Amino acid sequence: MRLRNKPWARDAIAQNPDVVIQQPATWKGNWHRCFGRQAPLYIEVGTGKGQFLTGMAKHHPEINFIGIERYESVLVTAMERAKEAELTNLKFLSEDVYDLLDFFADGEVSRLFINFTDPWPKKRHEKRRLTYKDFLAKYEIVLKEKGDIHFKTDNQGLFEYSLHSFSKYGMILHNVSLDLHNSDFEGNIMTEYEEKFAKKGMRIYRCEAQFRTNEESHNL
Amino acid sequence: MRLRNKPWARDAIAQNPDVVIQQPATWKGNWHRCFGRQAPLYIEVGTGKGQFLTGMAKHHPEINFIGIERYESVLVTAMERAKEAELTNLKFLSEDVYDLLDFFADGEVSRLFINFTDPWPKKRHEKRRLTYKDFLAKYEIVLKEKGDIHFKTDNQGLFEYSLHSFSKYGMILHNVSLDLHNSDFEGNIMTEYEEKFAKKGMRIYRCEAQFRTNEESHNL
Repeated sequence: MRLRNKPWARDAIAQNPDVVIQQPATWKGNWHRCFGRQAPLYIEVGTGKGQFLTGMAKHHPEINFIGIERYESVLVTAMERAKEAELTNLKFLSEDVYDLLDFFADGEVSRLFINFTDPWPKKRHEKRRLTYKDFLAKYEIVLKEKGDIHFKTDNQGLFEYSLHSFSKYGMILHNVSLDLHNSDFEGNIMTEYEEKFAKKGMRIYRCEAQFRTNEESHNL
Repeated sequence: MRLRNKPWARDAIAQNPDVVIQQPATWKGNWHRCFGRQAPLYIEVGTGKGQFLTGMAKHHPEINFIGIERYESVLVTAMERAKEAELTNLKFLSEDVYDLLDFFADGEVSRLFINFTDPWPKKRHEKRRLTYKDFLAKYEIVLKEKGDIHFKTDNQGLFEYSLHSFSKYGMILHNVSLDLHNSDFEGNIMTEYEEKFAKKGMRIYRCEAQFRTNEESHNL
């Protein structure tokens, strides 16, 4: 993602603590209180400008959503979008996904989205990919049993790598689509990237990956 | 595959018992004797007209190869190819893959190829797909520890399904390629189908799937 320097972003974010949650570690295990209601919690790691999660929050008012984005200059756009749409079921964290376990209790999250994340194509940068095993280990902790990851990308190499990484970790792949926009998948909410790439006729790859339960692991 | 009726195929096959092995169950556990030497055994299920396995046998004289094909009218072409190339490291079975365990002992096979197999796209035909779990269970038995499956297809739906099936079974995916002919994969031997589809510019999908060892399963 091209990052524009926006020196005003930090201030703008600080002025909207009801949308971008400050000191999120204090809500760990109690996000339903932050939202003021009990509801399944879906999170997106690397939420960017928030088009996907804003769309999801509109279409699924029964779900609490949190988007995590470390770049303030990008997150500020997501924040403005959420404010404009007056969504009460969508919050953001101006944080690094690396620190995920600081913000969510074990099993607090029902679903996790990874959309069009940085592919880090060089082998020596493998550890930075959001589908690298160390990240999967964190996702597994915060997700409840049978919780899953929904993953989309236009990047063929990242998708190929992620299929390896998910399967190596013992995850089960569901609803794999190697050409999402020419599939019968319904209810797709597009990200900014996705709209751009789809217009160019590029393929979008998608899959769902589910952590194996203890019982399922035992039966292998 | 379009099947032409070739009433003479059965006779032709019967006349070449050194290439198409009769009563293969009698060699179970002793295929190295049939080949007259100790060497790793690679098999292909649904070998068709044999272009792939003939090419492989030429390029890998250090390996013993067996192709299994239930349609005599197709297998007869594979047989003629192997004879013409005077390959001593390639045999065929005129058999159904369903009966695999009748022909190979536990751990006798080092690698198993599935190439451009019938996709059986209807859900109710799932059990016929050669990547269905019941087939995987048989492959796991005949393959040695760390043995793997090399799988290629042009059929997007079959590939998507197979990624699910492999991962659900607990297998680990390696070297996934979502566009084999535009990848850096080396040493690809093309099947008849593959040549045809590749000329039309269609994508070829490929992956390797490895059964989890007991230790690897235990560590999940």
